[in-house]
Amino acid sequence: MKLIGPFKQIVTLADLPLRGKLSDEQLQVIIDGGIVVDDGKIKETGNFEALKSKNQNIETVTIEGEQIALPGFVDSHTHICFGGNRANDFAMRNAGKTYLEIAESGGGIWSSVQHTRNASEEELLKTLLERIGFLVSLGITTIEIKSGYGLDVENELKMLRIIKKAQDHTKAKLVPTCLSAHLKPRDFAGSNPEYLNYILTEILPKVKEEALAKRVDIFIEKSAFQPEESKDFLLKTKDLGFDITVHADQFTPGSSRIAVEVGAKSADHLEATIDEDIEFLAKSDTVATALPGASLGLGEKFTPARKLLDAGAIVAIASDWNPGSAPMGNLITQASILAAFEKLTTAEVLAGMTFRAAHALGLGDRGKLEVGKKADFVTFKTDNFQNVLYNQGSLNAENVYINGNLIH
Amino acid sequence: MKLIGPFKQIVTLADLPLRGKLSDEQLQVIIDGGIVVDDGKIKETGNFEALKSKNQNIETVTIEGEQIALPGFVDSHTHICFGGNRANDFAMRNAGKTYLEIAESGGGIWSSVQHTRNASEEELLKTLLERIGFLVSLGITTIEIKSGYGLDVENELKMLRIIKKAQDHTKAKLVPTCLSAHLKPRDFAGSNPEYLNYILTEILPKVKEEALAKRVDIFIEKSAFQPEESKDFLLKTKDLGFDITVHADQFTPGSSRIAVEVGAKSADHLEATIDEDIEFLAKSDTVATALPGASLGLGEKFTPARKLLDAGAIVAIASDWNPGSAPMGNLITQASILAAFEKLTTAEVLAGMTFRAAHALGLGDRGKLEVGKKADFVTFKTDNFQNVLYNQGSLNAENVYINGNLIH
Ligand SMILES: [Zn+2]
Ligand SMILES: [Zn+2]
Repeated sequence: MKLIGPFKQIVTLADLPLRGKLSDEQLQVIIDGGIVVDDGKIKETGNFEALKSKNQNIETVTIEGEQIALPGFVDSHTHICFGGNRANDFAMRNAGKTYLEIAESGGGIWSSVQHTRNASEEELLKTLLERIGFLVSLGITTIEIKSGYGLDVENELKMLRIIKKAQDHTKAKLVPTCLSAHLKPRDFAGSNPEYLNYILTEILPKVKEEALAKRVDIFIEKSAFQPEESKDFLLKTKDLGFDITVHADQFTPGSSRIAVEVGAKSADHLEATIDEDIEFLAKSDTVATALPGASLGLGEKFTPARKLLDAGAIVAIASDWNPGSAPMGNLITQASILAAFEKLTTAEVLAGMTFRAAHALGLGDRGKLEVGKKADFVTFKTDNFQNVLYNQGSLNAENVYINGNLIH
Repeated sequence: MKLIGPFKQIVTLADLPLRGKLSDEQLQVIIDGGIVVDDGKIKETGNFEALKSKNQNIETVTIEGEQIALPGFVDSHTHICFGGNRANDFAMRNAGKTYLEIAESGGGIWSSVQHTRNASEEELLKTLLERIGFLVSLGITTIEIKSGYGLDVENELKMLRIIKKAQDHTKAKLVPTCLSAHLKPRDFAGSNPEYLNYILTEILPKVKEEALAKRVDIFIEKSAFQPEESKDFLLKTKDLGFDITVHADQFTPGSSRIAVEVGAKSADHLEATIDEDIEFLAKSDTVATALPGASLGLGEKFTPARKLLDAGAIVAIASDWNPGSAPMGNLITQASILAAFEKLTTAEVLAGMTFRAAHALGLGDRGKLEVGKKADFVTFKTDNFQNVLYNQGSLNAENVYINGNLIH
């Protein structure tokens, strides 16, 4: 057992509801606070001096200078296991080139698939760990990571095994997701439904056997998989015992409705979701995940997070870090820009990057500094927690704690 | 004389025109390049090995690992000399509070004026130097800095003297601008024209006497100064021998036209500029400065940089770093997001952050790695210069050189 503090402010996010809009007045801010950690979990939070006199012989970890503490962030949607680099795609897209022109010059998702397939396991693990290290340095303590650049049995399993191996090298919690249904690979001879059936019969049983992932994702979009075949795939996936998440409504509306109908844990993107489907989503238990990194990478509109929150949805915010559409990877910058465009309160943004995102991953044990939750938290050298979003990513995290232990 | 290299790539920006659109094919990229520096200036660029054999006994500064070099960036519009902090404004604005509600709770520009007036010179200098240090760490080697939070003789001169003093503590070139016409301060008893006359008769003569600034700026906007009174002020300012720049068309169109009419060096913001005025600006020598940091801080539309470039304007990109509307300060992040939304080529973005921005400051001696120009450059640890914008600010500058000397 140990006491960590004093912190100028601890923003606990305690008692905030899982869904709907939040005002900043609802934020619990403990001034000159301390955190008592026992067995990696939060035993108590409160005034540092009061906690100290109450626990006479407790080991104390003293925080130097003015720092504030927030729950560790949860990035519930990333594609950070990949080979190659698509800087040229970014430059070409900004230069006004079409999707086809970019693909013809060797870009597009297919380029990432080829580089990922050709990369050695060592190389993939190394770059994955570098990206995990970057996310941890931002204060992110739980990271979802998708496959989806292998797109055949051998390479999808290779990706998921590397993500599993990465867990041995980081204290951050990694949550793998099988996204074999990213798109039908060029070298698959059959139709879309045939490829989806290949995933169901050839890939997912092995994923289950090796316990490589408990979650399955699909990209439902004109250019990827169509609504009906996707719904059929998702229902069968569910029968296999997987949790479901969906890349929904990025450019074309309609698929968030499927996500809700099949009971997906989350529907992510939603930039094109129509008002009627916002209402439908808001009445469901499916988390609506905003991915501002994709909007900033593509220069497209943002997820209608304000409308979703007002309608009562559970809104998470994730980075979508990937080599194509969202190459920045800085969730703090992205979330604070989303706040400015969508007019989100600080409470809504912090909730979206913590316990609401954790809910999308089925992790109810984290994301708030509340009694019994995991003692994952991030500190910033400032006297005002508002500065974290105000500086839009320019204020670096000072320290990162997982299970109450300093890891960064 | 010394030779610096080898660089995997040197993007010189040589031979690019001052105005109008640019394609990435126009970029001169020297592979495995070197830079010969003599007396702080560029004597030659070219293949590193060729330069080495040509200059037998030259001192060589060897670059380790794969790095690329770009001209040092020029941030031609900042407000980084200020006291206080407006994180609460940012949170309130995002929470949907009005300008009036924010002002009533102690926010708004007036809050920065009060904090700047009340701050000690030591405190103002210290925080100014911290912000300069942050900009230099991004690869910015020339920084414009405005007054405008003093708004009376004593405090405007205090700000400008501190900016002058800061120059003694940094190798970066600082370019001060007098923005006493930021808004009429609450404690000035007269009308707008009377305040502008006060600037002309009380402040500017002293600015000139002490050589504190050669540039004068004004914020023309419904909430600040009106078009006719501003035009009159600018013409008189010009008669005093100052260069002119204008905060134009941020929310209301019309003032960029005035900037052009009075021969301003630059018209900055332009988010609300109408198509007809884009054409007018494009035919002038007034630099059109995009300030994506303000769009990202406020969640408002971007400067129509694409239209301005297509029309033939000289387009610069600057950070507008200020405590109210643009608190991020990361010009690389901002410029790369602008590129994604406005569809700007890499060449257009790099030109906008270098020689085109330098032109707005009347500095023709920098911003390209060309013979005779200042040897100001920034390096990044990568083998592809496209990664600088692709990573949208997540790739940190490795080293910064000013006059050929390593300063960061
Ligand atoms: Zn994604
Ligand atoms: Zn400004």
